[in-house]
Amino acid sequence: MQLTLRNRVVVPAREGRRIDLRTGEHLRVVTEEGGQVGDLFACTGTPAEWLSAAHTRVHHSRLFPEIGQPFVTTRRRPILTLVEDTSPGRHDMLLPACDPVRYAALGVTGWHASCAENLRTALGLDLDVVPQPVNLFMDIPVTPAGELRWNSSPAGPGAAVTVRAESDCVVVVSACPQDLSGINAGTPKPLVLERLVSWT
Amino acid sequence: MQLTLRNRVVVPAREGRRIDLRTGEHLRVVTEEGGQVGDLFACTGTPAEWLSAAHTRVHHSRLFPEIGQPFVTTRRRPILTLVEDTSPGRHDMLLPACDPVRYAALGVTGWHASCAENLRTALGLDLDVVPQPVNLFMDIPVTPAGELRWNSSPAGPGAAVTVRAESDCVVVVSACPQDLSGINAGTPKPLVLERLVSWT
Repeated sequence: MQLTLRNRVVVPAREGRRIDLRTGEHLRVVTEEGGQVGDLFACTGTPAEWLSAAHTRVHHSRLFPEIGQPFVTTRRRPILTLVEDTSPGRHDMLLPACDPVRYAALGVTGWHASCAENLRTALGLDLDVVPQPVNLFMDIPVTPAGELRWNSSPAGPGAAVTVRAESDCVVVVSACPQDLSGINAGTPKPLVLERLVSWT
Repeated sequence: MQLTLRNRVVVPAREGRRIDLRTGEHLRVVTEEGGQVGDLFACTGTPAEWLSAAHTRVHHSRLFPEIGQPFVTTRRRPILTLVEDTSPGRHDMLLPACDPVRYAALGVTGWHASCAENLRTALGLDLDVVPQPVNLFMDIPVTPAGELRWNSSPAGPGAAVTVRAESDCVVVVSACPQDLSGINAGTPKPLVLERLVSWT
């Protein structure tokens, strides 16, 4: 199977972009400069069915899928399958999207970009509750005592994650604007989305 | 501070019950026979604000709160504080509520009670997306490789968890009807809810 680049979308630092996939199409998320977290959301087009971190965990009895395993929705249906990962493989599915309340708690006064607002803007929807994202390139290890550590993203320049759509879906990726913790090494950077179609 | 029992609600095996709390009131969830998982949901009365597992994790940088720490909502506001735990302290905040799709995948044909349906019934709401519960007395350890183990509930007879309401809220507890995995030792059992008020 050969994959051909169909379109390429730059996600500017601190912003989010939407990309629509048809079943069988691939999406590659690239941190060209390295060390940038990407919050990935996916839905089937109805507000009732989102990619769900919790349902994906129970589906595989794992904190994060392995290569070849799908992310599933709130209705437990596969929506995206993880097909390739050229990063060190450290991704997070424990934490919610950053939002204005989070930045206020961190001491920010006034406006600060957030992944939650980036999702709302990209979809043009005033969602009451923001689904929990897949935090690509985000390294949050769990200690034996159940504590979470906040590491700087270990993804090097050009590292990429590729997923295949298992149903027609809408994907939003936010280049996380977090500049107060170390997860983006202090400097939010852009990401690149590549939509790939196959010729078999 | 002295706590006085105000009302007592039996949650029959495989069913769910709602209990409303005012700020400062306490709720004790008891597994009288031991070894029974309870899925606890809480909301502030608006569909937009639920107790959130993911936001609670980031609030404390832990998989589960310690005694004295609150569970927070999708808006990151404390809703219930964990004040006492007489069980071995093994609870889960990684997994979603069981639902009809889950039981179908486990081979069930026809109807099977589920925590998701118990929540809908207890609230009288046809929720599109069921919030992720706090799974009391459910022991799901994480291995260093990120795999989840499914242990039988280690809570002995009479073990109880007590939470304090940080705002007026609606709580639903479902006595998990899971009888196909070992989490309830094969036999779903009832739970007891005690609403306690304080006289200081």
